[in-house]
Amino acid sequence: MIEAAIIGISGYTGGELARLLLIHPEAEITYASSRTHNGKLIGSVHPHLRKLLNLRIQSFNPEKISDSCNFVFFATPHGVSQTMIPQLMDRGLKIIDLSADFRLKNLNTYVHYYGRHTCPELVKKAVYGLPEIHKEEIKKAEIVACPGCMASASILPLAPLISEKVIDLEKIVVDAKIGSSGSGVKPSRSTHHPERANVIRPYKVAKHRHTAEIEQELSLLAEADVKVSFSAHAVDTVRGILATIHSFPLREVTEKELWRIYRKFYGQEPFIRIIKRREGLYSLPDPKTLIGSNFCDIGFEIDEHVGRVVLVSALDNLVKGAAGQAIQNMNLVAGLDETTGLFFPGLFPV
Amino acid sequence: MIEAAIIGISGYTGGELARLLLIHPEAEITYASSRTHNGKLIGSVHPHLRKLLNLRIQSFNPEKISDSCNFVFFATPHGVSQTMIPQLMDRGLKIIDLSADFRLKNLNTYVHYYGRHTCPELVKKAVYGLPEIHKEEIKKAEIVACPGCMASASILPLAPLISEKVIDLEKIVVDAKIGSSGSGVKPSRSTHHPERANVIRPYKVAKHRHTAEIEQELSLLAEADVKVSFSAHAVDTVRGILATIHSFPLREVTEKELWRIYRKFYGQEPFIRIIKRREGLYSLPDPKTLIGSNFCDIGFEIDEHVGRVVLVSALDNLVKGAAGQAIQNMNLVAGLDETTGLFFPGLFPV
Amino acid sequence: MIEAAIIGISGYTGGELARLLLIHPEAEITYASSRTHNGKLIGSVHPHLRKLLNLRIQSFNPEKISDSCNFVFFATPHGVSQTMIPQLMDRGLKIIDLSADFRLKNLNTYVHYYGRHTCPELVKKAVYGLPEIHKEEIKKAEIVACPGCMASASILPLAPLISEKVIDLEKIVVDAKIGSSGSGVKPSRSTHHPERANVIRPYKVAKHRHTAEIEQELSLLAEADVKVSFSAHAVDTVRGILATIHSFPLREVTEKELWRIYRKFYGQEPFIRIIKRREGLYSLPDPKTLIGSNFCDIGFEIDEHVGRVVLVSALDNLVKGAAGQAIQNMNLVAGLDETTGLFFPGLFPV
Amino acid sequence: MIEAAIIGISGYTGGELARLLLIHPEAEITYASSRTHNGKLIGSVHPHLRKLLNLRIQSFNPEKISDSCNFVFFATPHGVSQTMIPQLMDRGLKIIDLSADFRLKNLNTYVHYYGRHTCPELVKKAVYGLPEIHKEEIKKAEIVACPGCMASASILPLAPLISEKVIDLEKIVVDAKIGSSGSGVKPSRSTHHPERANVIRPYKVAKHRHTAEIEQELSLLAEADVKVSFSAHAVDTVRGILATIHSFPLREVTEKELWRIYRKFYGQEPFIRIIKRREGLYSLPDPKTLIGSNFCDIGFEIDEHVGRVVLVSALDNLVKGAAGQAIQNMNLVAGLDETTGLFFPGLFPV
Repeated sequence: MIEAAIIGISGYTGGELARLLLIHPEAEITYASSRTHNGKLIGSVHPHLRKLLNLRIQSFNPEKISDSCNFVFFATPHGVSQTMIPQLMDRGLKIIDLSADFRLKNLNTYVHYYGRHTCPELVKKAVYGLPEIHKEEIKKAEIVACPGCMASASILPLAPLISEKVIDLEKIVVDAKIGSSGSGVKPSRSTHHPERANVIRPYKVAKHRHTAEIEQELSLLAEADVKVSFSAHAVDTVRGILATIHSFPLREVTEKELWRIYRKFYGQEPFIRIIKRREGLYSLPDPKTLIGSNFCDIGFEIDEHVGRVVLVSALDNLVKGAAGQAIQNMNLVAGLDETTGLFFPGLFPV
Repeated sequence: MIEAAIIGISGYTGGELARLLLIHPEAEITYASSRTHNGKLIGSVHPHLRKLLNLRIQSFNPEKISDSCNFVFFATPHGVSQTMIPQLMDRGLKIIDLSADFRLKNLNTYVHYYGRHTCPELVKKAVYGLPEIHKEEIKKAEIVACPGCMASASILPLAPLISEKVIDLEKIVVDAKIGSSGSGVKPSRSTHHPERANVIRPYKVAKHRHTAEIEQELSLLAEADVKVSFSAHAVDTVRGILATIHSFPLREVTEKELWRIYRKFYGQEPFIRIIKRREGLYSLPDPKTLIGSNFCDIGFEIDEHVGRVVLVSALDNLVKGAAGQAIQNMNLVAGLDETTGLFFPGLFPV
Repeated sequence: MIEAAIIGISGYTGGELARLLLIHPEAEITYASSRTHNGKLIGSVHPHLRKLLNLRIQSFNPEKISDSCNFVFFATPHGVSQTMIPQLMDRGLKIIDLSADFRLKNLNTYVHYYGRHTCPELVKKAVYGLPEIHKEEIKKAEIVACPGCMASASILPLAPLISEKVIDLEKIVVDAKIGSSGSGVKPSRSTHHPERANVIRPYKVAKHRHTAEIEQELSLLAEADVKVSFSAHAVDTVRGILATIHSFPLREVTEKELWRIYRKFYGQEPFIRIIKRREGLYSLPDPKTLIGSNFCDIGFEIDEHVGRVVLVSALDNLVKGAAGQAIQNMNLVAGLDETTGLFFPGLFPV
Repeated sequence: MIEAAIIGISGYTGGELARLLLIHPEAEITYASSRTHNGKLIGSVHPHLRKLLNLRIQSFNPEKISDSCNFVFFATPHGVSQTMIPQLMDRGLKIIDLSADFRLKNLNTYVHYYGRHTCPELVKKAVYGLPEIHKEEIKKAEIVACPGCMASASILPLAPLISEKVIDLEKIVVDAKIGSSGSGVKPSRSTHHPERANVIRPYKVAKHRHTAEIEQELSLLAEADVKVSFSAHAVDTVRGILATIHSFPLREVTEKELWRIYRKFYGQEPFIRIIKRREGLYSLPDPKTLIGSNFCDIGFEIDEHVGRVVLVSALDNLVKGAAGQAIQNMNLVAGLDETTGLFFPGLFPV
């Protein structure tokens, strides 16, 4: 039985972890902490969990955690888990970190994008938690560093074409669109409803932090240095990411060949669906059709006019982009079927 | 094992039934029909079910249904099940009808609100499927007539105060607000996004059909004739109903007494939550906090200024307002725990 | 020529005043102040006014105001104008106050709902700025106290029926729904997009402050004490209020008679439209059809089933509910046609 | 005085033309036709124009038009104006066509993207109605072919960099996002609110028709053949387009140089604003800040990491993307100041 601690329970990722663990048949939440809601019931912070989860939020206490848990989830902002994880080592705990702290293997890159790292020696212990790419390493990991939501949406559709050396590594444009829950739980003018509703807002058209992990993973797959033109936009929905990837094949490719490549790469993956129909409203992925689920849907279209392959990926940023992927990683580390507790078809329409 | 047929699979209620049956541990969908999508895979009609449900839509065929099913769900528009159910009788099938056809005991009332009824003799066999009110009868029913979504949201908060004779039966105002999925799957100008987005539209401020069943059930509880001032509004969300009920107590009541009455009436009910906190954003029910779940949240507030008790109820119109309640009824008829397959905490935020 | 000061420019009402004055043919903004954005260009606070209004925000300075202005608008939170207006008296300035400070004639009521009033002696000088009710007094006013947005939406539809003694004064239920801009410019969890999107939230079902002014004005019209059952809800749109008013006639009324009453009362009013069609999507008012305009649309429907007259009113809370009405009042005080600068048909669809 | 006919009044573009002509000081609507609403008042089709425009819709009649009008606007689907305009020639009428029929100079391209053209001989008479590019020709035009909404949003930000030969013509990626009003007035499943709300939907990631006119205009400016990688997405708002353009400079460029280029190209243009601030929520264009206005806001950001210049443009698809630009063209043809009747700052927040 998994006994889980959630550090940083008060955010949306923390709430989503709690919801998913609550319905997980092999797990139980035995500890939850937050800097800001000490002593409160989880249900008084997360209204959807009211009367369902009778647990009080505590402050972070490594002894209590190792007494009552075997898995520890970090749903904290970057910079926090690097100070806490060292206190939890050598206690037989498995760590699933949803923050950015242990994702980047290159310390300089981390420092460039996020600032100081106080615990670089643990970075090499951590496995980048994208199960479709690193499954075997995750199973044996002590620390799993779950990918950023935008990174998952970017790496997953690109991985097959980069592995198969189909596309030009010099010309990869990722144009991502995301809902408001990606901004976290803290109010600000940028998320104030009168200003956030009806936007099509370019909020980070260059220098987005997730660029670093996308390039790290794609370079590994390419066995070459990959740079990505990444831009992020805020649109008016609460959940969901769509990444549109403009890629340029090095040689002529056919739809049939692309189907073959994607089927080969992802045919056995329970949470990847290739969505490509000749016509109709849902002929390509749209996060709307998978809200609440752990799927990443991937589609593609060849644009002969300019010699382009457009890739499209969709996921729920709080599930496959965060808490769902973390549970998937937990399942792998715990030796469970990776779909345990994650079979949910997507709420539609919503 | 429950083997279920869904008649009218192509609408939103049909899709939601399919989703809920898919994750139900004791049920399986063995048959699905629709007038409009004969031969298609369910996943080609409902994009969230793609690759999850490998079943083709057929035309309605009573023999095939009785060969492969023991439960039959009707997710059809009103007027349809009354012509089909007679063909299914005496085959040992249990019927769960989500349409209006068998809800109203008084034929004249049905005719007034809906038009002709071709099968009045089966009406008395049907049990009104609001489990919190008619649980024991439902367990033994052959036909369960599931309530309208607005009716559930109106009857549930009023039932305790009417049973306890707290409020004036002459002055009950129900002001309901609903999301767009309540309009069904068929496009029209009223649901065209440019015209439906950002509305606060009074779409039926008098003569709403659900008035009839609300009055039927409240009159039974009151043992007196109850009339209700019902008005419905469309607001900009996909799922959710909020009913605000302005009621006027016959005598002075205190919060404590109201708490006592609601706890007594609903204390054992797994899908009713009394939501009333002194302060905070979620001090009263809001459908936003229970989307995807089978809860009906109920709250109240005393307005001494005018001698009013304001009741507020919230539910997901496609779950507790339709498919979830139908599954709850199925569980009761099948002798299962009524929460089987329905434990889902609500997706939040969404 | 009107030379206007806007005190409290940084809020949404301030921004809307600036927009309307900018396009007003007889007015100019010559002064703007705010506690929080001293020294900034107005366009750096209000993105829609960028490059259109080359004026810097100052701190409040009565001398400068009386040197450069003849009209002063207060778009401040309650409690502010009562401390500033005394410093502006006897300078020949006309005051248009959009806050609550001078709306209530009864000091005790003000204190009950809002707290201390430091300047009660000026209250009697102020005229309640609902032009359709107090036009002649407004023309001669030195201080106009503009109504609350919810109050305008409630008083305007009720005034004719109360004046004509058609409805029961003991049974008036106002169920109001409002968009997020009504919450003002300051972010909080209640307006945080992930939590504010898709709500149908009962945010003040009793004890709403606007009740006081609604009752004051209706009592004047009724020549009797009127109490109102008022409840407010937040829905997912940025602009707009719909008030649904459940009223109960003292005698039988016909549609024809109601038409006659409304035409008589409002036939000459340029910003009141009676919207009542036999059928169709827009047969009753919906704020969606008048966004950006100064209209208040009013409709009605008789519900014979319970002996009810349902009134429905719609307006844009930032225009007819605030800044537009303030400009209408300014026009009246300045001796201009009251529609000057306010002819805008509503942006649709939006 | 301009006396205008609107052909195709019943769509959103027709309604927007009517609204703008209604508030235009030098124009009057004297004729309106539609295939579908013959005999109705305009206000019964467009709810925001109720009681403001007392004109009935007629069927298309060239004689009546030439008797009562001097300007004719076509707000018809493609394929219609090419059959009607020949009947209006030689009557001294000025034609402003908002459809695609006369935009493309190359007949083969038209046929490829739209199908048959019955009136190719008039194509060379038509001027492409993007005033910032073709102002002098428009002033003398008999037929103005107004650009597609996506085309305006793409050409305007690219024109300066292409004219100045800054960017690589082989690598231009335009990733556009648009609201639902762009789909027109006719309901379908793709615009049905339950399915259209909360989408981030790739609806045309290759082969979008507007590609043709974008390439035509950019090739003219480049004096070379330009091909564009264009992809369009539907997002959840009613109005607004954001185009994100990923371009790659041929040599190193600085922000200062880009500022200089844009100021030189657009410094005198009343409807182009360069929006680029170092920080803050509105540091780049967002259609949210200009809804209802005729502005096209343009911003840029240099991404040194990959050697990219990201351009961002925003406009209201029904105003600068359609009806507003048409009025701007009408003003130019009529010899008026091009801003006449178009000074509206954008409704915010909405």
